[in-house]
Amino acid sequence: MHNLMIKHAAQVVTCSGFEGKRGREMADLRVIENGTVIVTGGIISHVLKPGEPVPVNESDYTVIDATGKALLPGFVDPHTHFVFGGYREEEFSWRMRGDSYMAIMQRGGGIVCTTHATRAATEKELIVSGRQRLDAMMRLGITTVEGKSGYGLDRETELKQLRVMRHLNESHPIDIVATFMGAHAVPEEWKGREDAFIDFQIEEMFPLVAKEGLAVAADIFCEKGVFLIDQSRRYLLAAREQGLQLKIHADEIAPLGGAELAAELHCLSADHLLQASDKGIRALAEAGTVATLLPLTAFSLREPYARARTMIDAGCVVALASDLNPGSSFTASVPLLFALACIYMQLTPEEAVTAFTLNSAAALGRADRIGSIDVGKQGDLVLLQFPSYKFLPYHVGMNIVEKVIKKGILIVDNA
Amino acid sequence: MHNLMIKHAAQVVTCSGFEGKRGREMADLRVIENGTVIVTGGIISHVLKPGEPVPVNESDYTVIDATGKALLPGFVDPHTHFVFGGYREEEFSWRMRGDSYMAIMQRGGGIVCTTHATRAATEKELIVSGRQRLDAMMRLGITTVEGKSGYGLDRETELKQLRVMRHLNESHPIDIVATFMGAHAVPEEWKGREDAFIDFQIEEMFPLVAKEGLAVAADIFCEKGVFLIDQSRRYLLAAREQGLQLKIHADEIAPLGGAELAAELHCLSADHLLQASDKGIRALAEAGTVATLLPLTAFSLREPYARARTMIDAGCVVALASDLNPGSSFTASVPLLFALACIYMQLTPEEAVTAFTLNSAAALGRADRIGSIDVGKQGDLVLLQFPSYKFLPYHVGMNIVEKVIKKGILIVDNA
Repeated sequence: MHNLMIKHAAQVVTCSGFEGKRGREMADLRVIENGTVIVTGGIISHVLKPGEPVPVNESDYTVIDATGKALLPGFVDPHTHFVFGGYREEEFSWRMRGDSYMAIMQRGGGIVCTTHATRAATEKELIVSGRQRLDAMMRLGITTVEGKSGYGLDRETELKQLRVMRHLNESHPIDIVATFMGAHAVPEEWKGREDAFIDFQIEEMFPLVAKEGLAVAADIFCEKGVFLIDQSRRYLLAAREQGLQLKIHADEIAPLGGAELAAELHCLSADHLLQASDKGIRALAEAGTVATLLPLTAFSLREPYARARTMIDAGCVVALASDLNPGSSFTASVPLLFALACIYMQLTPEEAVTAFTLNSAAALGRADRIGSIDVGKQGDLVLLQFPSYKFLPYHVGMNIVEKVIKKGILIVDNA
Repeated sequence: MHNLMIKHAAQVVTCSGFEGKRGREMADLRVIENGTVIVTGGIISHVLKPGEPVPVNESDYTVIDATGKALLPGFVDPHTHFVFGGYREEEFSWRMRGDSYMAIMQRGGGIVCTTHATRAATEKELIVSGRQRLDAMMRLGITTVEGKSGYGLDRETELKQLRVMRHLNESHPIDIVATFMGAHAVPEEWKGREDAFIDFQIEEMFPLVAKEGLAVAADIFCEKGVFLIDQSRRYLLAAREQGLQLKIHADEIAPLGGAELAAELHCLSADHLLQASDKGIRALAEAGTVATLLPLTAFSLREPYARARTMIDAGCVVALASDLNPGSSFTASVPLLFALACIYMQLTPEEAVTAFTLNSAAALGRADRIGSIDVGKQGDLVLLQFPSYKFLPYHVGMNIVEKVIKKGILIVDNA
């Protein structure tokens, strides 16, 4: 039954809206106290204030009493690399003791390690490990997740990663939004021929991806020493011609101007942005390109956090994401994400909630369908063990999600 | 059935030892690959290397196949304040936006808020919320936890907190080690009469606590503006006379000499130690007093971390704890504890494991009974989803505990 009624929630944190919220708007969660939400046929059909009559027949619905508990939109994680082969737990120790990236590469670590393991893995193996990761995310309240290719860096493996995501999207309750990221790194065999590698993406990969409908967006690692601004522009413009939406790994390590490029091309989102310039931030705000920040990566790498406060104050649409990947951020921890955003990036709890619901939906171009509790949107909901969303950052690092509902179906019950 | 056999664990991380490990010894986890552990009647009876014959009748045992998974001693959290009334989620937001501690106090925040709520709560209410917190800890692999009184600061409430812990110890699978902390703060009604308040603890409270056998240790908040060195010494010496073991909140905010006092009195542990002096650290090492570090508190308060590396290199017995409490560290997150220890305090994964198993058992005076996988110790075990303990810090902030075993009984199955 996709008919569900959640009654008497201490808070219905609606996050109401159909597009990403900019700047100060992010603080407005439009909370209804003691509210009731009705999902009919998988779609939110009613959001009721206390005292409003229930306009449906309760016996047609699964009813959950949410007294003393806060109800939120399902969380949306708009930037992950969750399909990969192998692990790098040894490398983690090397990095922690201060070994250089070059030393780690020479010992077989780094992205090359994951590329080898992902190439070697069968589709079935990637499905099994991918499903385990989705299960863990689901228990943390994530109902929609973006996933990128980019660990194959060759034709077959890139397509394999995307097909794995297609399979998981069809067989797992979490919705998966697939992004093609053939330009995640320059593989050994293309070193020194970056322009030709970009040509390969444009001429061979984009048409294949588009033909099978394997991805809805394209992404590129625009960074000093990886792909430069002009290469990134060429890649992204060609992707758009194939009907793909645009995302970009921008200004993570050096202030290369990735934020400015994202604004120029009106990308859906620019991600990382640790080194984004003031000009880049203003450009993102003007263009309405979502600034997707990845605090778990900064935490894991002991890097400074992105300037979230500056971005919000400049009127940006700020989103949060996990960046789950086997190297720099092997985590999908929603509670740690909220803790870092509020303790170390000076987001208020309200802004953090908007950033991981409506604004992260906007980073995927789906704010019209998910990311808030509004009539007409998908019935994707999270019920907390506590009466307020304020417990999300306050109960530091603890999973306080009690129930998760996807399209009106109870998919997680941690109670 | 308290008979359990865990076969073919990818790693049996024994942490073998019957007292806290000092300095370099902490890195030696004595791992057995492809090992088998047998618990008979709740006690570890055999720890087998691959190829060693199983010397019991398998049909008398519940058998778990641990292929591909690492087996560790149950985690021991040696410093919490998990029994309390009320929450302070509003105060968290005030603190994050930069309000001063005084401003927060004036708005009804701070420890006074928790004292009021704990005094007002019934024993039953404290049992219900305490049990919820124990359940959450248990799912994270904690099999023994210390809990302190200290939110009553009056006769009845202090005894109430301790009785709640006694009740929970008898009714919940987790073992609870109760510590009396009547000198956690100076309550309003005793302000300016700190010496008399200490007299009250010594003359009235210690005998009551001892008579009912409500606690095994006493603790005091030795800090500038709270209880000074001489007051702390007097309190602790009197506690020892009543048969209580000694713990101390030392050098958290100011370098008052709490570490030196802990060493002088041969306390079981000195806790916090963010500002401990070099001399204090050397004294702890010489005395064998456990240095219990609380990185979750430092993280939550944006404070610098304790100098764990210096302490280990000086030969200290270093333990880790959550400090779970409703104000400065509302968390029992084991995964975040490991991440902070390894990423921000430069512990190796091996040292962090020792610090949260054998050494935290030593901080409770129980290293002879728990904290390692040794024949004769309690059958308290944690099975990870992954083949190596190295995934504990590497899978940042994620709970990777699959099964928890207490005295040979499976009490958590997250699979």
